[in-house]
Amino acid sequence: MEKGALLYEGKAKRLYATDVEDVLFVEYKNSATAFNGLKKAEIEGKGILNNKISTLIFEKLKQHGIESHFIKSVSEHEQLVKKVDIIPLEVVVRNISAGSFAERLGIEEGTKLKRPIVEFYYKNDALKDPLINNEHIDILGIASKEEVETITNNAFRVNEALRKIFEEIGVVLVDFKLEFGRDKEGNILLADEISPDTCRLWDAETNEKLDKDVFRRDLGSLTDVYNIILSRLGGK
Amino acid sequence: MEKGALLYEGKAKRLYATDVEDVLFVEYKNSATAFNGLKKAEIEGKGILNNKISTLIFEKLKQHGIESHFIKSVSEHEQLVKKVDIIPLEVVVRNISAGSFAERLGIEEGTKLKRPIVEFYYKNDALKDPLINNEHIDILGIASKEEVETITNNAFRVNEALRKIFEEIGVVLVDFKLEFGRDKEGNILLADEISPDTCRLWDAETNEKLDKDVFRRDLGSLTDVYNIILSRLGGK
Repeated sequence: MEKGALLYEGKAKRLYATDVEDVLFVEYKNSATAFNGLKKAEIEGKGILNNKISTLIFEKLKQHGIESHFIKSVSEHEQLVKKVDIIPLEVVVRNISAGSFAERLGIEEGTKLKRPIVEFYYKNDALKDPLINNEHIDILGIASKEEVETITNNAFRVNEALRKIFEEIGVVLVDFKLEFGRDKEGNILLADEISPDTCRLWDAETNEKLDKDVFRRDLGSLTDVYNIILSRLGGK
Repeated sequence: MEKGALLYEGKAKRLYATDVEDVLFVEYKNSATAFNGLKKAEIEGKGILNNKISTLIFEKLKQHGIESHFIKSVSEHEQLVKKVDIIPLEVVVRNISAGSFAERLGIEEGTKLKRPIVEFYYKNDALKDPLINNEHIDILGIASKEEVETITNNAFRVNEALRKIFEEIGVVLVDFKLEFGRDKEGNILLADEISPDTCRLWDAETNEKLDKDVFRRDLGSLTDVYNIILSRLGGK
C-alpha cells in the first residue's frame, strides 16, 4: 500500500492518505506533550512503543467484541486504519480519582469511584479542551443525542474490556481517553489510539505509575514504563 | 417575629433563625463580589435594592405558579423564607451566550442559543465553583438522579416565567443562576435570591447591561442600573 499525502498532524501522530479509499496510514511520533501542549519533549522510541501497545490493545479489544478503526500494524511505528471523521470530543472514562478530576472535585487521587463515569471534553486546542456537558454538545452541534448515547455506551463497554485486559497483566486501569469517529455510512467507530499516553495505568501491587504521568510529573523514564506495559501485554 | 442566632453568612446575605420553626430571616448585605470573590466592594443601597427586586420577582413567579422559599419581605433589606437545606449546586440557565460560557465554548457573547440550556456548578468556594456534569453530581452524592431531573425541569419552568416577566418590562433575560433546597419533607424548593446579582439582564432596545456585569466589568454605577430594574418591575 502506498503512503500518500499528509492529511493531518496532531501532537502524537501523523495521518496520511493511501491508495485505497477509506484507509489511512497512521504514523506514531516521538513527541510527548502535556498540560495542553505547555510541556513538550521528543522521546526516542516513544512512537514505536505506542504503535506496538496500541496495536496489541486494539487486537485484544477485538477479541472482546469491540470494533475500532484499527486494521493492522504495518511497521514498527505505523498502522493502517479505517478513515473516519473524528468527532471533536475527548471521551474520558474514570474508575479511580486522579489528575484534573481529583483537583476539580476535591476527591483525593486514588479514591475508587462508586461506579465508572464518563466525561466529555471539547477537543479544541484554542479553548484548551474544556470539560463540557451534554447540553453543550447539543448547542455546539458536535453530535446528536443518539450519537452521544452510543458513544457513552461504547465507552463503558471499552472500560469493561480494558479493565480485564489490564487486570490480567497486574495493572489497574485508573482512567483513559477515547476518541470516536463516523465512517462514511455514519456509524460511530472507536478511533485514535489506546496507549499509556491516553490511559492512567498503575501497577496493581506497587501503585507505580506506568503511563504519561511519569512525563507530566517528572517521575522517571517514560520509555522504561511504556516498555513494562508493552512486555506485560506480550509484545517486545 | 424575633430575629434569632446567625446561622450562615454568605457573600451577599446573612441567614438568621427566628422563633418560628422552619422560618428564617434573610438579611441582604451591601457586599458585591465577582470572580469567585477576587473582586469585592461595599455598595451603599445594594442590599435594599436586591431585597426589593428579589421580593417582587418571587411574588411574580408565584403568580406564574412557581413556588419558592420566599414568604414575605419584612423590612427594606430583610425577608422571611422557609428553611431549606441548600443543595450545593449553582443551577445556571442560559438563553444567550455570555460570560464564562462564551469564553469556555468560544461562542461569541450575544449569540442566541438554539434552545435554553441548564448547567450545574458545584457550589464550593475552595474549588471555585467548578462546572460539573450529571455524573459528577452522582459521584459527589450531591443529589439523586430524580432530584436532578426535578431541578432541571423546575429551572426551565422558572426560565419561561422569568423571560415573560422581564420581556414585559423591556428586558432580555440572558442567563441566570438558581439555587434549590430540600424542605423537611424532602421536597425540592426554589431558594436563594433572584436579582441582578444572579441574572444577566440586557435592555431590549439598547442592549445596555442592567446587572452585576456593570460591577464585574466596571461599566458604571451598580445602584443606577439595579434601580432601573426595580422601577421597571413596579417597585421603588
